[in-house]
Order: sequence, then structure tokens, then C-alpha cells
Amino acid sequence: MATDRPMQLGMVGLGRMGANLVRRLIRDGHDCVVYDVNEEAVTALQGEGATGATSLRDLAGKLERPRAVWLMLPAGIVQSTLDQLVEVLDAGDTVIDGGNSYYRDDITRAQQLAAKQLNYVDCGTSGGVWGLERGYCLMIGGEDEPVDRLDPIFATIAPGTGTAEPTPGRTRDGTAPHGYLHCGPNGAGHFVKMVHNGVEYGMMAAIAEGLSIIRHADAGVKEQTVDAETAPLRDPDAYRYDIDVAEVAEVWRRGSVVASWLVDLLADALAQSPELTDFRGRVSDSGEGRWTLIAAIEESVPAPVIGAALFERFCSRGLGHFSDAALSAMRAEFGGHAEKKDRP
Amino acid sequence: MATDRPMQLGMVGLGRMGANLVRRLIRDGHDCVVYDVNEEAVTALQGEGATGATSLRDLAGKLERPRAVWLMLPAGIVQSTLDQLVEVLDAGDTVIDGGNSYYRDDITRAQQLAAKQLNYVDCGTSGGVWGLERGYCLMIGGEDEPVDRLDPIFATIAPGTGTAEPTPGRTRDGTAPHGYLHCGPNGAGHFVKMVHNGVEYGMMAAIAEGLSIIRHADAGVKEQTVDAETAPLRDPDAYRYDIDVAEVAEVWRRGSVVASWLVDLLADALAQSPELTDFRGRVSDSGEGRWTLIAAIEESVPAPVIGAALFERFCSRGLGHFSDAALSAMRAEFGGHAEKKDRP
Amino acid sequence: MATDRPMQLGMVGLGRMGANLVRRLIRDGHDCVVYDVNEEAVTALQGEGATGATSLRDLAGKLERPRAVWLMLPAGIVQSTLDQLVEVLDAGDTVIDGGNSYYRDDITRAQQLAAKQLNYVDCGTSGGVWGLERGYCLMIGGEDEPVDRLDPIFATIAPGTGTAEPTPGRTRDGTAPHGYLHCGPNGAGHFVKMVHNGVEYGMMAAIAEGLSIIRHADAGVKEQTVDAETAPLRDPDAYRYDIDVAEVAEVWRRGSVVASWLVDLLADALAQSPELTDFRGRVSDSGEGRWTLIAAIEESVPAPVIGAALFERFCSRGLGHFSDAALSAMRAEFGGHAEKKDRP
Amino acid sequence: MATDRPMQLGMVGLGRMGANLVRRLIRDGHDCVVYDVNEEAVTALQGEGATGATSLRDLAGKLERPRAVWLMLPAGIVQSTLDQLVEVLDAGDTVIDGGNSYYRDDITRAQQLAAKQLNYVDCGTSGGVWGLERGYCLMIGGEDEPVDRLDPIFATIAPGTGTAEPTPGRTRDGTAPHGYLHCGPNGAGHFVKMVHNGVEYGMMAAIAEGLSIIRHADAGVKEQTVDAETAPLRDPDAYRYDIDVAEVAEVWRRGSVVASWLVDLLADALAQSPELTDFRGRVSDSGEGRWTLIAAIEESVPAPVIGAALFERFCSRGLGHFSDAALSAMRAEFGGHAEKKDRP
Repeated sequence: MATDRPMQLGMVGLGRMGANLVRRLIRDGHDCVVYDVNEEAVTALQGEGATGATSLRDLAGKLERPRAVWLMLPAGIVQSTLDQLVEVLDAGDTVIDGGNSYYRDDITRAQQLAAKQLNYVDCGTSGGVWGLERGYCLMIGGEDEPVDRLDPIFATIAPGTGTAEPTPGRTRDGTAPHGYLHCGPNGAGHFVKMVHNGVEYGMMAAIAEGLSIIRHADAGVKEQTVDAETAPLRDPDAYRYDIDVAEVAEVWRRGSVVASWLVDLLADALAQSPELTDFRGRVSDSGEGRWTLIAAIEESVPAPVIGAALFERFCSRGLGHFSDAALSAMRAEFGGHAEKKDRP
Repeated sequence: MATDRPMQLGMVGLGRMGANLVRRLIRDGHDCVVYDVNEEAVTALQGEGATGATSLRDLAGKLERPRAVWLMLPAGIVQSTLDQLVEVLDAGDTVIDGGNSYYRDDITRAQQLAAKQLNYVDCGTSGGVWGLERGYCLMIGGEDEPVDRLDPIFATIAPGTGTAEPTPGRTRDGTAPHGYLHCGPNGAGHFVKMVHNGVEYGMMAAIAEGLSIIRHADAGVKEQTVDAETAPLRDPDAYRYDIDVAEVAEVWRRGSVVASWLVDLLADALAQSPELTDFRGRVSDSGEGRWTLIAAIEESVPAPVIGAALFERFCSRGLGHFSDAALSAMRAEFGGHAEKKDRP
Repeated sequence: MATDRPMQLGMVGLGRMGANLVRRLIRDGHDCVVYDVNEEAVTALQGEGATGATSLRDLAGKLERPRAVWLMLPAGIVQSTLDQLVEVLDAGDTVIDGGNSYYRDDITRAQQLAAKQLNYVDCGTSGGVWGLERGYCLMIGGEDEPVDRLDPIFATIAPGTGTAEPTPGRTRDGTAPHGYLHCGPNGAGHFVKMVHNGVEYGMMAAIAEGLSIIRHADAGVKEQTVDAETAPLRDPDAYRYDIDVAEVAEVWRRGSVVASWLVDLLADALAQSPELTDFRGRVSDSGEGRWTLIAAIEESVPAPVIGAALFERFCSRGLGHFSDAALSAMRAEFGGHAEKKDRP
Repeated sequence: MATDRPMQLGMVGLGRMGANLVRRLIRDGHDCVVYDVNEEAVTALQGEGATGATSLRDLAGKLERPRAVWLMLPAGIVQSTLDQLVEVLDAGDTVIDGGNSYYRDDITRAQQLAAKQLNYVDCGTSGGVWGLERGYCLMIGGEDEPVDRLDPIFATIAPGTGTAEPTPGRTRDGTAPHGYLHCGPNGAGHFVKMVHNGVEYGMMAAIAEGLSIIRHADAGVKEQTVDAETAPLRDPDAYRYDIDVAEVAEVWRRGSVVASWLVDLLADALAQSPELTDFRGRVSDSGEGRWTLIAAIEESVPAPVIGAALFERFCSRGLGHFSDAALSAMRAEFGGHAEKKDRP
């Protein structure tokens, strides 16, 4: 199923996502010139049909004009790479930032590039390690011209219409049913991707909380501590279930209202380790959830669920320690409550 | 694709869900005797191959022993119907409650029926109006014997394995990949369904909040009120996007981490009405979310996201009025802040 | 400052609160007969002017009819003590439960006692270890007759009007400005006390979170980890403050909007240990916060702040572990994100 | 009780807070030169002993060097006023911003003024309309020299030690027990004031939610709607209390753990209007709560309670409408749930 409009793309950054984007493009008939500071990553993709480059200048030299160069880099090094890249590009070329940059940086960078008659496109890319086979959902920001020109690239990277049933009530055309969308001017792509990740935080937390409630449906079986510091379970007989959480996640995958890719993934993790013993539960957050919440605050949009999900992650990493110590200190002051020593 | 183990089932309650369960069963070769206080509902299903009954006694008379009778009723009338039904059943018969009963009632009812040597099975049924074609996710509680005996019924109602990709890491057998699961003794089915709905609340809220943040990405375009009571938007240039929310929902359906049936549904609603003008935003809750949160509290499991989602629904219905008035009253007391009169 | 209406009261349970209630009563001219399973506690109060009792029966024998017996016991042993006590009381006597019983138990217990023509009064008692000097805030439920009869007792235990400025807008009479209130029929006292504690959870959390935000105003000084898993601080120069949290708590005690007894207490704790090193931050909860949240749910009243405060306490005790592990598991599945090993 | 170190201060902005600061200063023996665009405000204070000025230049001319000028202005006009003011000041003069500016602006403004050898002091001022008699809690940021020089001014404006009991565990000296604190370099004062307001949001919400739960303790008395969309109250007999909320607020003022100025204020509001009928419950927020939450996010400090309180305010103003409509839309899609039409 090769594209009928093959294009050429430069890819900078050959980590898992960058490399898989290249594989998906090559597989569909596009021509890729690839570069990474890690030479092995370049060599590996050369073996799969890509053209290797030894520097940004070399990459630029191997691309026909107007060039299109996709950056797939950690947010922290996008700016410095971009600064070098623009030195070797020419008017009319386009840079696509496919990583998780903050959309406000896109606005600044697009202005910076526009001053050199370069186009800037921000492209939020969702799909993770599964994107190679599943396709990537693309949320794109930028001027119409470069975005339209790059359509064959986006169409190849995106999942395509066949990957989900058509939306019954839908009558419009457009690329959204193919899994990619030009969301608006510069920054709009990363804005939508940012919020996508905020939604992801909330959905993940809802699922995790629910399965934890099911996991602890045996609370009434455990011996009850009776002291002034512990609320006894009022009706232990209502909590005597020993429910197989892994099977619950599996059954929710079909026909239920909560059926979702995240439930699919958790069912997979639980199938491998029903008690999730490989995980200590220190949940990272890589920025988008924070930025989403800040956007909600600045827009005056209530987002209590996304907020609770973000702070739950902070708590999981022990970041609430001082606050919790202050609570215990107040309890000790007014009630003479010493902290309980043993883990409940 | 008819079942190879046809059974007979009595269905009491022929609302949308009850009627569709009957259709799905008939279609797969099972024999259904149906009853509803609404005679037209009975007549309609007779026309589709069901056997009609004029009363619970008539229904019992038309079923072979050991009978299986499925109740698909609003939670408020389950108990009274059950009280009548047990009068016309015999030892060894089974009643399945497929509605949204509180799992604590299941425990009581199962004891009530056991005293008459009747079996009780609680079956949480998810799938809504789409279940006829999509199949229903079933979460089942009860003794092994009746649950095992009814397996062909559950297998027909459930979606079946083909409706989702197999879970890669899964090595176990069991019915979960078919979309139904015997979760544990009485109440376990409705317990899992209850939490399922709690998870649903959280996922829905995450999606809704996110799309609202995208919807209001134009906050910087609107004229800013400047007074001591309103925080001005610090960087309006960062909020000048006019993003098509309906297209965002559509693009998230494929390849994204948030891909889910709920996003599918919202994409459909937005395709029909991009501003959702048919909805005033008074969001009902029918009990399971509340019960889930109570379970979390009693089990000592943190559930801040599900909690926030539940209270967001309460707020949407104006139930926070007294609390909000108290906030305004305190502000008026300490700061002389009069409430702002115009809607923001 | 002795009462002009001295009464006699039996006190059962001579822990810190019970003993201090007795001291406050004796000091004001009331006559107390005291009992505790711990004989030393009885002896100690005898030395301060109370009449000791060796059993509930002995206590009853030393009280004039109609008797008034105050229980000041852990919630877990109230019922068993009450069962024994009613055996030695007579029609017309009154039992006051001054502990932290669940108000629903009050309803049941009042009915149980009414059957024997005994009066039951539930009395939520706030004030902690400071009540001896500061007085106790009393929230009372029960029939009018016994509550009115016990007025001199309540008036002595309560702080009295002098302890706070009069409310400017107040024109009504009543006991509330004295620090005690007959809230309604049985259970109403403990209901109001329960909610009082729920409010306390929320206020405490607000203060603790705020001081933690001030404590971490030096976030920009710390070295920043740069990797794909960590969001870098966007503007470290805005977070270079080393603010003395103990002094902040002290300054907020006077003239500020947040001035409160809880801030007073935390200022005291921080004065003694600015880093709160004696506290691990495992915050107990003893039931009222949970019950308050359940009441909010059942009444359909939004209580997102009290809910967040309760769940924050659960998290502080590690009770979110399974949920957090599930989040990490999902992240590992979709993004290949390994958990970070070191504490941030 | 006049100060023994009288100083001279220019006050720009004679709204309620600015005027009351001047009154407090004059009363204590300081000399004030006052200016406002509203001439009547100037005239009024002249009648109380202040020296009036007709322009910023006039004000500067009437102050001895090194001058101290206090701005008490809405955040939105601080910058423009400051720009004009610096034109008429001389090296060594000091500007104090006593309003609710964002602390990040303080950092910029201090640099701007330093370039002209002017000192900048940011001073968060809490106390509202009650500050004239109660004194204002001052949170101060800036260089040591100007802050030390202005000590007599701060000492007069602050409440003073007598307004609260000494903190028992405190052994340190310092100004905090007098109600003012030099928190750190520029911005630190407004940072602490910002968080103070965030704490205020959380405390207010806790109190308001709690009183609402008490207000609705009669939920079981109201007729119950029974339909599939409404969860019936499981135990209506537990919610048959008609509790006087105004009296509860009053009784909490003395001896309780939640005793606080905010409870004092709400008791006053409820004494005047027990149903708070003057308030529609549209709760404004003027920026500090938002900024506090953003600081928590950027510092990685969990602040679920302050977050919930902020979003509760947004909801009260109808800002969750689109999100709520999306929830109703999803419910309609999966369950055929029409929204309920009547207000509960």
C-alpha cells in the first residue's frame, strides 16, 4: 500500500519514535535522509533503506529544495538544534517539530524562522512505541502552504481511516478521519497535543483508581485495628471480595463504556504481572499535564479532574512530604495525636 | 452464527436494554419468554420471535425448570418485582438481576432467595443503546453452579473475542476475552459494574475538560475586563486559537493514546452539533458514581479523580449554590467585594 | 467565676479529654463522680476534688436522680459501655455521649434508651488538648428537656462569650455566642461535629499546601535534571526565594484573612521545628472526614475540597500504591517509560 | 499610642485600602502626603490631617528626600503609574507597591527602578475593609536597606503583638509577632501574599462546603424522585435534620478547631441573612489563587485542595458549561439519556 505521492524528508533524532517514523515513511515509498548524534542509530536505519547523514549540514546537502526536516528530539535540545539547523537551510524550506515542545515556544520559533523565510510546522505526535504498526495521531500547527505541501508525509504517518469505524453522524470531509489534523496556526498542533496528554492523565487516573478500588474490595477481610486514630470499617461484610483485577481489565476491553486503548494496555500489563510488582508507583510527568492545567487556569476553564490527576502524580513521588508533615504537626498540636508508626 | 447450546430465558422488563438483550438472544438461537407491564413492548417482541407472557405467573408457567429469569428493571422497582417473582418460582430456579442495583442489595437478596432454594445472580451490563450490535460487557456475581449453567446465555449477550485484538501478553484462558466475567460471589458483578461506571465518570470528565480547554483557546481574542475583581489574562497572545473541537475529537479516534469508545461517541455528538447546543449541561448521575466513591472512602483508597468528576456533575446541576453564596458572602465581608452582575 | 447553678455529673472515661472536662466542671463548682477502667486515672481526679467510682454500678449509686452520665470514650467501645450502663440507670436518667460517635449510631442508641425511658444526648466536643483553658465548643443533639436541664454543665464546659469579639451583625439571643449549641434532635450534635471535622480537614490542607508552596519557592535554585521524563522548570529565576516558613506562619496570625487557630498551632509547631523533622507525614484520619464526605455524596452537595483533603491523607499513608503502580504500568506500555529510580 | 519614630509617606491611590492605611498612619503620628485621580478622595483625607497633592509631581515635591511613596492601586494600572512616578523621583527614593501585583512583575520592576538608583519594595497587604481597626498583615519583599528604613511605617500599619496570644513555643525575636515580615528579596512579599490568598481560597471553600452539607441535612425530608436518572437517597431517615446554619457558624467561633476570622465573617453574614439571599453565588477570583496554583505546578508541589477551590469558583460562574454539555452529550450517545429538564 504505497503512497501515490512520494516525498523526501529529513529526520533529525533517531530515538524510538524518530526511527519508527522513518520506517513507516520508507515502507510507504517515501525517501528519508536521517541524522542523529548517535552514529549507530544512523547506520541501523541506513540498513533499512534510509540515506544517512553525518551532520545537519550533510543532511541539508542531501535534501532537494524546498527541504522538509522533521525534528524528533527531547524538548530540552530542540532550540539548540534548531539554531544550528537554520544555518544550513534556505528560504522556502520547512522545519517540522514533531516532539513535545511547549506550544508557546512554537510561536517564538515560527517568528524566528519566518525572519529567514523558513517555514515552521509544529506537529504533536501521539502513539508511543506502538505507532510503527498502529500509526501516529498527528495534531498539526502552521501556515497552510507548508502543511498542505507535506500532506503525503502526514497521510503516511497517520493511522488511516480503516483503523476505526466511521463516525455515524459525520458528514464532513477532511483529514481527521485519517488520523491527522491541521489544527490552526503555529502552536495549535502542540496545543492540541498538550491537552491530549492532559486528557490522558485524567483517563489513566480514572482507570487506575477504579482498579484499585476493585483490588481492595477485600478490605473487610483484613483484621481491623481499633484505636482512636483509625476509623473502623463500618460494614466489613460489604468488602469481602477477592476480585481478579487483571481479568476485570480484560473484560472491560469489549462492549463496555470504558473500552479504550489505555484499558487495553493495562490489561496487557496486568496479564504479565497481576500485582504490578515491577512498579514502585513513582509516576513521572513530562510537562504536558502541567501545561494543560496552566492553560485551563489562564482560560478560566474548570479542570478539576485533570488537576487532581496531576497532583496525584506529584504525591506518588513523595512531593507532598512537607505538606503532609505540616498536617501531622497540626494534629499533634491540637489533639496530641502522635503519628502512627506502622504502615496501614 | 448461532449458539450450539440453545437455552431458554425469561426476560422481565422490556425497555431498550431488555428488548435488545432479547433480540440478541433470539438472533443466536435461544428461546425467550418475555414480560413487561407495558403490553405493547411484549407484543413487539412477539413479532420478533419471542414468546409473550401476560404476568409473572404466566411467564413462570411458560419456562421449563430449572427456570432462568432475567430482570432488566430500574433499580427502584427491582425489589418489589423480585418479591412477586419468587412467589411463582420453584427450588432450583435462578433469577438474574441485570440492572444497576447496588451490590449491597445483591448480598441481601441472594440470602433472601437462598432461603427458598432459589439462585440469585447479579450481572452488571454495560453497552447502552449500542449493545444490540456491539454486544454487552457482562460482570457477573453469584454461585458457581448457576453462573456456569447460564454460560451460553452470557456468551451470546457478550461481544465475543473478535471485537478487539487479543491482549499480547495474555496466556490464560477464561471468558474475559469474550467480554463476560464471573467476578466472584453475589454482589461482585454489580460491584465491578459500579466501579466501571465510576471510571466512566472520570474518563468522561477528563475528555470533556480537555475539549473545553481547546474550545477556549481563543481566550486572548476576547476583550479583557479590567477591574479589581477580574484577573487579566497575562499573555493573551498565547490564547488566540480558534480550534475546531469536533475535528479534534475525530482525529483523536485513531492512533492516539486517548482513543476510546467515549471519544468515538463525543466525536459523533460533535459531528452533529459542534457547539452542543442541544445540551444545557445539567449532568445527571444515577448512583454508581456515588457508590464507587463511598467504596473508595470505606476501603481507604484515594480516588481524587473520580471524586472530582462526581462533584463536577453536582455543580453542573446548581447543587453548589449555597456553598458558592457562602463564598461570595465571605468575600463581601472581608473585602467589600460585591458580586459581579454580568455573566463572564 | 463559679456557676450559680451547680449540678452533679458522672463522667465515664478519664482520658485527656474526659479528665479535663471534669477539671473544668469542678473548677466552676459542679460535683463530679468519675469512673475509668484505669484506676490511676480515677485516683488522680479524686485528688483534684472529684468523687471516685469503682464501677458503673458504683457510679450510678453515687449520683442523685435524675442522673446525668457523660461518656468520653473511643468510638469503638461506646456501645458496649452503654449496654452495661443502661442496666444500672433508671427512668428519667440521661446519658451524654461526648465522643466522636457516628451520628447514625446516635439515632439507634437514642431509640434503644428511649425504650427504657432513658434520655440520650449526643454532644460533639471540639477543643483537643487545649480545651481545659480555652473551653470546648459543644454541638449538642437530643430532646429539649434533658438538653435544657443540662444547660449549666454545657455553659461551664464551653468557652463563654468573652473568648471572641461579638459578631457585629448579630441580634439574636441564644447559647451559640457562649460556644455551645443545641443543634437538633438526636444525632444532630454529632452530625455538626462530624462536618466540623470535615471542614477542619480542608482548612488544614489549604494551610499545609500553601506553606509547602512557600517552602519550595527555591525550586529554581536546585539543579535541573534534563531528560525526556522530567519537565524542566521554565523560568527558574522566578523560584529563587529562600523563605522562612515558620516566620510566615507567625506573621499570618495577626491581621490576615487566614488568621485562625490552626495557623496559630502550626506557627507553634514550626517555631519548635522549622523543618518539621519529627513528622514523617503519614497523616491519620479518624472517621469524621470520611463520614462528612459520604454525607455530601448522599445529600448531592459538591464537596471537592473536603474530598481532596481526605484523599490527600490517604495518599500520605501510601494507600495509593496500587493505583500509582497502574499508572506507571500504563506509561511503560505506551511509551516505554521506565520508572525513574531516584527520588526527585 | 503614637509611634516614637514618626516618618513621612506619600500614598498614591486612595480607595478604601489606601485611605485606611493613611488614617492608621496619621493616627499614629506619621505625616502623609496623598494623591488620587479622584480629587474628592484627596480632599476627604486632607480633612483628616493628610497633606493633599494634585499630581504625582506635586506629591514628590511635598516629600522630603529620601522619599517613600506607597502605591495602593488595582494591579492593572500599577505599571503605568509607576512609569510616571519614576520620572519625578530621585536616586535613593523608594517606591512601595502595596497592592496585589504578581510577584514576577516585582522582579522586573525592581530591576527597572534599580537602573535609576530607586528602591522598590513589594508589600502584600492583607486585612481588607477591617484593617483600619484590626491592622494589616504585611508581607514584604525587597533589599534590606529600604525595608529597614521603613520599619516605623510597617510597625504602625501592622496589628501589633497584642492582637493575638504569643506563640507558646516561640523563642525568636523578629517582627513576625507584630504582624509584618520581611520575607526576602523583591517579589518575596507578593509571593507570600499570593500564597496567602491561595490558602484563603481553600479555607473558604472548606467552610462553605461544610455549611452546605449541614444546610442540606434535611435531604431525606424532601420528596424523592424515582427514575432511572436519579439515585434515590438510600437512607432518608439519616437526613432529617433542620439545622440552623447561622447558629452553627456562630458556635464554631469559640473553642473549636476551625475557629478563624473567616468563620467570624461568615457568622456575621449569616446573622444578617441566614439564607444568604443577597448572593447569587457567582464567586469572583482576582488572580492570586490562579497564580498560587501555577506556582504549585511549576514547583512540583501537590495542591489538590487549592486547585479544587479555584475550579469550584470557575464552576460557580458557569465557566464549565461546554465541559458539562460534553458530558451530557456523551451520556445521550451511549445511554440515550436525555437531560433532565427540571432543576433538582
